[in-house]
This record gives sequence, C-alpha cells and structure tokens, in this order.
Amino acid sequence: MTAASAAPRHRVVIVGAGFGGLEAARALARAPAEVTVVDKRNFHLFQPLLYQVATAALAPGDIAWPIRGLLSRQRNARALLAEATGVDPDRREVQAGGRAIPYDTLVLATGATHAYFGHAEWEKHAPGLKTVSDALELRERMLLAFERAETTADPAARAREQTIAIVGGGATGVELAGAVAELAHHTLAEEFHAIDPRDTRIVLVEAGPRLLSAFPERLSEKTRRALEARGVEVMTDAAVTGSGPRGIEIGERTIEAATVIWAAGVQASPAARWLGAEADRAGRAQVAPDLSVPGRPEVFVIGDTAAVARPDGRPTPGIAPAAKQMGAHVGRTIAARLAGRPGPGPFRYRHQGDLATIGRNAAIVSVGRVELTGFAGWLFWSVAHILFLIGFRSRLIVGFNWLWSYLTHRRGYRLITRSPAPGSPARADPATGEA
Amino acid sequence: MTAASAAPRHRVVIVGAGFGGLEAARALARAPAEVTVVDKRNFHLFQPLLYQVATAALAPGDIAWPIRGLLSRQRNARALLAEATGVDPDRREVQAGGRAIPYDTLVLATGATHAYFGHAEWEKHAPGLKTVSDALELRERMLLAFERAETTADPAARAREQTIAIVGGGATGVELAGAVAELAHHTLAEEFHAIDPRDTRIVLVEAGPRLLSAFPERLSEKTRRALEARGVEVMTDAAVTGSGPRGIEIGERTIEAATVIWAAGVQASPAARWLGAEADRAGRAQVAPDLSVPGRPEVFVIGDTAAVARPDGRPTPGIAPAAKQMGAHVGRTIAARLAGRPGPGPFRYRHQGDLATIGRNAAIVSVGRVELTGFAGWLFWSVAHILFLIGFRSRLIVGFNWLWSYLTHRRGYRLITRSPAPGSPARADPATGEA
Repeated sequence: MTAASAAPRHRVVIVGAGFGGLEAARALARAPAEVTVVDKRNFHLFQPLLYQVATAALAPGDIAWPIRGLLSRQRNARALLAEATGVDPDRREVQAGGRAIPYDTLVLATGATHAYFGHAEWEKHAPGLKTVSDALELRERMLLAFERAETTADPAARAREQTIAIVGGGATGVELAGAVAELAHHTLAEEFHAIDPRDTRIVLVEAGPRLLSAFPERLSEKTRRALEARGVEVMTDAAVTGSGPRGIEIGERTIEAATVIWAAGVQASPAARWLGAEADRAGRAQVAPDLSVPGRPEVFVIGDTAAVARPDGRPTPGIAPAAKQMGAHVGRTIAARLAGRPGPGPFRYRHQGDLATIGRNAAIVSVGRVELTGFAGWLFWSVAHILFLIGFRSRLIVGFNWLWSYLTHRRGYRLITRSPAPGSPARADPATGEA
Repeated sequence: MTAASAAPRHRVVIVGAGFGGLEAARALARAPAEVTVVDKRNFHLFQPLLYQVATAALAPGDIAWPIRGLLSRQRNARALLAEATGVDPDRREVQAGGRAIPYDTLVLATGATHAYFGHAEWEKHAPGLKTVSDALELRERMLLAFERAETTADPAARAREQTIAIVGGGATGVELAGAVAELAHHTLAEEFHAIDPRDTRIVLVEAGPRLLSAFPERLSEKTRRALEARGVEVMTDAAVTGSGPRGIEIGERTIEAATVIWAAGVQASPAARWLGAEADRAGRAQVAPDLSVPGRPEVFVIGDTAAVARPDGRPTPGIAPAAKQMGAHVGRTIAARLAGRPGPGPFRYRHQGDLATIGRNAAIVSVGRVELTGFAGWLFWSVAHILFLIGFRSRLIVGFNWLWSYLTHRRGYRLITRSPAPGSPARADPATGEA
C-alpha cells in the first residue's frame, strides 16, 4: 500500500445524475477521489425521449437506468438516493436526505424545470414534462379525456375533451405535437364508437414568431408545414395569458382544452440560490470560464443550472450534449487538479447540431452543413437516438417498439394505472381494496 | 337489410375484462348481440406475470393491453371505462361510472382480491399483488428498503430493512419468493457499499403444511428445496397472527421485516352481494351448472367471483385457464340462446395442469402425467407463458427481457418513480415543482 492510497481520499460530491452529473463522475473514474453521486431519483433518465413515454410509445424503464447499475463498475464512485435541499459552501457540506454530506469538491448538476412566468398556479392545469411521473400523468390525462369524450353527450364538452393544447414551440413542444397527432389520429382512430379520434384538435402555441427558434429559420417553416400536414394547428406570436381548468387564454382568445401540456420557458434548479451565487433571469448560476463559481474554485455548476455564454455571446443551449460536455470538462478539471497537472482550461461548447422529430418519416436534422428533413431526417434521428441510449437492452427494445409502431401505427403502453375510471366513487371500495 | 338486423339488438353487458370476461366477449363475436365490456381499468392484465413487474423484470405495458385495442376488430363489441358499483337485477341495470347501463344478459367477471381474514388493517403494511399499481408499489417498497439499509448505521434497523416476508405459499407466493431472491442475491449484489444485498433475508410463510397445496405433494417438497437452495427461508404450518409497521407475527414469533407482501387467501369481488345471491365463505356466488345465477337465467357469474364445484367436489381453481373456460362456456351459452339452438349445457372444468416457476432454471410443471422440474420445467414454463401473451410485440419483448435477465442477472425496470427519496422534505419544493 502506498502512502497516497492510505491518505484520506479527496471527496467529490456530484448532485444530479443527469447527462452532466454522470459524465463528470465518469471523467473521474481514474482520479484518486471518492465520488458520491446524489440524486433524488434512483435512475438516470434519457429525457429527450420522455415525450414518447407520455404518448405511450415507450415504457419508462426503456429510457431510464438505475444509477447504481451505471456506477457499479466504477470503483471510486457510489450512489446516494437523497434529495439535496441546500449547500453550506463555508462548511463544505451538502444537505441531502436530512443529512450533511461533506465535500472537498462539489459539482452541482441539478437541471432545470419549466417556467410559468410568475404564474405557478397555471401548473396544475398545464403540467410540464420533466419527470417520469409527469409523463405518466400526461399519458393518463390524454387517454382519460378520450374516455370521457366517448361518454359525453354535450357536443361542446366533447370537443373540449378532444382538444389538446401544447404550449411552447421548441423541440419538446414540436416533438410532442407530432406524437400526440399520431396517437389521436392514427393509433386511437378505430377504437371508439361515439367519437372519432381523428377529429381531435391539437394546437401548438408558441409565443415567438417561429417554431424551433434555435434552428435555422428555413427549417422552422418546414417544421410548421410538416406539423400542419399531420393535422396540428400551429399558432405563433401567441403568448399564453391565462390557464385554467377549461383551457388556455391567448389575449382575447380562449382555447378550450381538457389537456394542456406546458413545454415553455426554463427555470433552473435553485443551485445558485443555495450558493448565494449570481444568477441570470432563469435562475442559472453565473460561472467562471472553467465552470466553477467565482470565489469558490471547489464548487462547479454545470448543465441547465449554469449560465455559460458562447464566444459569440449566445447562451449555451439547454440540451443533453451541452450538459455532457460540461460534465466531462469539469471531471477533467478536477482530475487534473488532483494530479497536480494543468487542467483543460476554459470550457468551450462545441455545437454538434440540432435534431427534432415531427412524426413518422419526418424529422429535422441540422448537423454542420448537412440538413436533412423528411424520411432521411427521420431515419437519421431514429438511429442517432438509439445509439444515444445506454446498453444493448434499451437499444433493442426501443428500436423494436419503434419499428412495431411504425409498421402498425400502434403504441404499446396505453395504460391508465394511477387514476380512477371516470365517474368512480371518490373512495376506495373496501371490498376490492383498490382505490 | 333483414328484419332481424333492424330489430333492437340483444344487449350483453360483461363486467370485468380479465381472462373470463374477455373470453366471453370473444365467444359472442358472431352472435346477434351488442356486447359492452365494462372495466374500471382501460387494460387487460396478464396477472400471472404481475410478480415480474413487482420484481423489476418486466414493464407493466409488456403484460397489459388496452381493452379497446383487443376489441377493436370485434364489430359487435365496445369497451366502457367505468367502475361497476352495483347491479339492479330487477330493472336489469348495472350501475357504473355514475350511470345505469341496461342489459338483457349480464356476465359478472369481476375477479377476486386477497383476504386478510377479517384484519383489513393489515393491508397497509402487507399489501397484496393484484393490480399494476400494487406491483409498482411493491417494487418501490423493496428498492427503497435497500436504499434505507445502505444509509442506516443501526444493525437491527438495517437487518429489518433487508428482510422481505411473503405471506402465502401458493403459486404467487412461491414465484414471488424466487424472483425476490434473484433480485436481492444477484441483481443488486454488487451495487451497494455499506450493505451486502446477498445478506437479505427472504421468508416465505405458509399457514398450511406444504407449499403449492394444489400441486401433487411430491412437487411441494421439491419446490421447498429449490427455494431453500436459493436462500429463501420457508416456514410452513405458520399462520400469521399479526401485521404492523415492523413486520409480522406468527404466534409468539415476530419476523421483523420492512417489506411484507400478502399473497394469501382469496376474497371474491362483491358480485354476489350486488345480486343478493348466495355466496360461499370467500364471497363467491353460488351458480347453477350453466354458471347462471339461480332464479336469474339472464345473469352469469364466472371466474374468481363464482363458486363452481368439480364433479369430485373440489372447487374449480382460481386460475386463468378456469376463468377462460367459464367465459367461453357462457359466451357459447348466450350465443346458443340467441340463435334458438340448444346450448352447451352444464359447465365442466378441464384441468390442464399446474405450473409455477421458482427462478432461474427451476420451475414445477405438472401437466397430465408429465411432471417437469429444474431446467426442463423452467424452459416449458417460459415458452408456455410467452405463448399465453397477446400479440407479437409482447411476446418478443418479454422473451427478450427474460433472455437478457437470464444472461446478465440484471433486471431492467428498477425504477422508483412515485415515492420521494428517503429523508426528503414532506412538501414539494416549489422551485422545482416536483413532489
């Protein structure tokens, strides 16, 4: 045993096992450090495909992997299932799960959620799509709305049940709109008697002048046309001014919709507040060029929680590749410090491209000078996302589910497991023991 | 258009889309009837594999199929998502979803749940395994117990977290015990630091003298030995006398267990009560030889809700093949009545055999004179169950998941999605919007 290995090991605590946090842990695999990954979930989620869980094409377990399993081969890493609630940067402790976890170096990778622009009360009727629980909740809301429509005699109420409004025309909103159109207009088409699911109104509402504002403008127009061809109403320059049980308001207009999905705005997790660090309007911590917090070289903030400007002044986008790059950069920085080597220096984001799928045979791909749309884009998007998944099992199952849905228009995960049937008595039936 | 098709169609209402109800609907496919299948869930569940959802080997959507999809090709059938709460046999109406649904013929196939022998308060700490929600709840309870054990310093508390008691040594209890042993002693073995999941104590408690009492006695002994070889403690002649937050009591003995799973006893759904019909001790309706309710030839009760004696006096077992046979019989009876043909007469149960799996390379199969155990039994069991599933997608995905688990000892669906992390603040963090 060498003196080095007998010395107390440097403790790196990483909060958040998303794309950034996991990548940071991996980059420390050979460092003389004791890495603890703290997350309030026991799994890493491939969030870019969460909308497919919400639209019943995939099971949650096909795009989520237990953190313990992912870290089990990394000898210097361990997982802790606990919700971080604060940081004491002077004592160098993270508060999580009612305990104080000491660190020598801290990486905060706690992500972001949707912003309701100061209207937290909108969330109840217009939930977002950030967690597995959100996705299952949305799946049930949509399926239940069709069930209620089937037994509703009042035409206005029925039309309301058969309207789904999606707020936010970024990648999440666009992908959701396309998938919801496929679900309503194809998968469910033949399965009802009193209603025709093909009549379902799907409205995509964007406050700005165009969809996919991060993409080249030409692709925004193509996206709009592809969605409209799939029966989606696209409203741009339409800022939501109200949300309630009956639907949403856009200035004077009301869209009566039983299901509203919120995919607009970004609110960073409160890492900056925990640190007393400066933050931008969305709550993202302002970080130094090496992603550390100014004045706290032992604390790093990465991913959607960090505000990182690109050389041209534009912000680093809140997408998985950016978070991964930051995680790897910070991991290498910490490893270099521990080895007494010079680190990789300032973080530099390399944009690899923009991808969004619209539905069958339609996706928008912009990678370097290459632009793909239609079937070619869709195929590229599908293959790329299967490769992004972790492990053979998920790749095979997701690939097979997609192929099956493609060939049959069906979606295998149309289950309502958490909500009672419409009109059920509010209380559990003691005879069956089921709520 | 013939006179017959212009006449109002005979209305058959089937309550419950389990094995019996669905089979009854199918047997009516060509009958001049309007078939309505009412269920409080929107899916048919392959309950015999539910324990594999509870032990993270399968996703719920792989063993459950939307009822609408299953009925979509049967022109005379429709699905209604509503919870039946009563029957008015004089007015010939089912109360469901706050409405009265009129019928000309009624089939009640509402199943059964576990019995707590008059101790309904035990359920809270010892939930059963009848619904998808139950399975996900149990999955989370077990996974969370390991997480708490990992961070618990007190050895007694840790031992308690690492103890799983299963009450009931029938097929469900035996299959659960084997799967839980695989989960704890293999899948999780290498993933913790402070604890060794191989130390997990798994106790299978049976009130009677032997496991699998419905099987030939010789197989019970083999089952016991196979479970013990997998590290399961088997206790027979051990009636549970108490259940609480710390575990279960068996007379003077206490088994301290954080997770208790109830797989004992059967309580039929309240169909007999709705009808004012005679019932046996478990609440099963006494039915005439053609499975109709005495004095109500237009009302049938089938599956786990019906008490049907076999010619030798033994009861028809509460298993899927029995429910399917009853469903088909009743469907044929109704179709014959509508056609003015003689019906199939009294129901006669044909026992096809008994199957139970214990774990990797071990299952008990007793079909006619053939008895298989060990690897041969396991292979027979696996192939048979894949064929029992509905549709190519489920067969392929379940088959692949089993092959993958067999080769890697892993289980792909180890997600905790509904419960907060241990020690989390009770309230949702308003900044993240997540409970």
